[in-house]
Amino acid sequence: MDDVDLSDIQAAADRIRGHAVRTPLLNAPTLDAAFGRRIYVKAECLQRTGSFKFRGAFNALSQIEGDVVAFSSGNHAQGVAHAAQLLGKRAVIVMPTDAPAVKVANTRGYGAEVVLYDRDRESREEIGAQLMEERGLTLVRPYDEPLVIAGQGTCGLEIAEDLPEDVDEVIVCCGGGGLTAGVALALEGRARVHPAEPAGFDDVARSLAAGARQTNNARSGSICDAILTESPGAITFPILKRLCGAGLVVTDEEALRAMALAWQHLRIVLEPGGAAALAAGLFHHAGDVAVVASGGNVDAQVFSDALSRV
Amino acid sequence: MDDVDLSDIQAAADRIRGHAVRTPLLNAPTLDAAFGRRIYVKAECLQRTGSFKFRGAFNALSQIEGDVVAFSSGNHAQGVAHAAQLLGKRAVIVMPTDAPAVKVANTRGYGAEVVLYDRDRESREEIGAQLMEERGLTLVRPYDEPLVIAGQGTCGLEIAEDLPEDVDEVIVCCGGGGLTAGVALALEGRARVHPAEPAGFDDVARSLAAGARQTNNARSGSICDAILTESPGAITFPILKRLCGAGLVVTDEEALRAMALAWQHLRIVLEPGGAAALAAGLFHHAGDVAVVASGGNVDAQVFSDALSRV
Repeated sequence: MDDVDLSDIQAAADRIRGHAVRTPLLNAPTLDAAFGRRIYVKAECLQRTGSFKFRGAFNALSQIEGDVVAFSSGNHAQGVAHAAQLLGKRAVIVMPTDAPAVKVANTRGYGAEVVLYDRDRESREEIGAQLMEERGLTLVRPYDEPLVIAGQGTCGLEIAEDLPEDVDEVIVCCGGGGLTAGVALALEGRARVHPAEPAGFDDVARSLAAGARQTNNARSGSICDAILTESPGAITFPILKRLCGAGLVVTDEEALRAMALAWQHLRIVLEPGGAAALAAGLFHHAGDVAVVASGGNVDAQVFSDALSRV
Repeated sequence: MDDVDLSDIQAAADRIRGHAVRTPLLNAPTLDAAFGRRIYVKAECLQRTGSFKFRGAFNALSQIEGDVVAFSSGNHAQGVAHAAQLLGKRAVIVMPTDAPAVKVANTRGYGAEVVLYDRDRESREEIGAQLMEERGLTLVRPYDEPLVIAGQGTCGLEIAEDLPEDVDEVIVCCGGGGLTAGVALALEGRARVHPAEPAGFDDVARSLAAGARQTNNARSGSICDAILTESPGAITFPILKRLCGAGLVVTDEEALRAMALAWQHLRIVLEPGGAAALAAGLFHHAGDVAVVASGGNVDAQVFSDALSRV
């Protein structure tokens, strides 16, 4: 039995309604024509804070009493910060001192308190533990947390509402597996879900093939920064194992090409990690498919680089 | 009495349901914070064919018997072509031989027949008249057509559904006035609508100020190509005059800055003419506002130019 079920996702959908964006499932006839099949794109880059992370963060925070803390320099930080802002909570986000200034500024812009730590000399876990004890904060994990998985699953419920009945393959950008597990649960019996990961960080694909959690050797080296995690989660992996088809792996170049095609045909802005599922759907899949375009928080320089591929 | 009323728009909404994208009304807390007020953006760049034009085209074609012809090298051409494709009609689009190859290719990609004419030696009206007579085609005008105005008005009905009750100013990108008139009718009594135009092509703003239709001297010279028209329409202008507030005028530089801000904060792709209302809302308006981001069909080079302003 999974730690999350469909009723948890339905409850999350009720909680986020009116707070999260009901994102469209886009389809471009010109893109379909270029690839000779139908491609549906769930535009989660249009979600509040620019990624699906807001769904899980809002669902979790709505059920947590008091204030919260999170470790993240990325999309989870912004999702938690903004959800806390809307729910009248204080959020403390622990970020490394070398995090990009724009991410620190954005997180503060959503009203969160940012606590910086030195990666080389300090432990973020110790800092977090101290904050939790001194200030009574609750830790919000980015994916290995049932309320977060249920929140991300609401994306899958919306896909089910919008997807043509004869399309039953869905690809999801996958880091720790929170979004993929939630979407797979929401679509159980309706569509087969495949995780998409960057080459060199295909821990989920290898874990699914091996039947047990595997770890990546590399810690950096892909532009798909939003979905670089060490291994699938202890809670997410059993769900992925039970429900998902084989993992798909994309190169950075394919992610950039998918960003360019999304810009051209769908008029949405994707970050590399948010384009991994589209890249997998276009370049490593045959037949009709839906993909989740999970986020759009990207630097202008990286985006211009992608645009040069149009 | 106007040539279009709310019941026409409601009928159009019933016809386009399931065919047009129900586009989201986006809001970015980071953009609001930067400008110190609330800014809502109706993302019509996500509409089928990349602009609101699909709404009016689909509504008109669904009520026209037989095949159709249109004069356009832009968003109207693509809207008519794709609407015809979905409705099982033949569309003939008359375009100048010097139209960009990508626009000709896109229009053909939506299944339309493209008839090219030489701007210097041929009259598109004569070519169109001949096609209508020989092949029994019906002309679909881009804005001075009640069914088209009613179709564009569906965008206004959706804004009314999503806009917070205490926001009552709406800005719309305005060429011939089809979208602006439709949205103004849909929002009558709910919000005040202002047209936004490029500097040098402010025929609607001047017409509203004068109380009678004015004409632009220039025929080119702004990057906002989607909304460069000679004068407001004979059908649209009385509606605009009765319902709209003062017209707002933006520079090309402001349109490019608005494109960059939309990219950064909303993760949507706008063309210059599609960003005019956002530019007006940001740089020529005070207080909370909703704007229609009307289209996103833009060249990579122009978009990269906008991105350099981030």
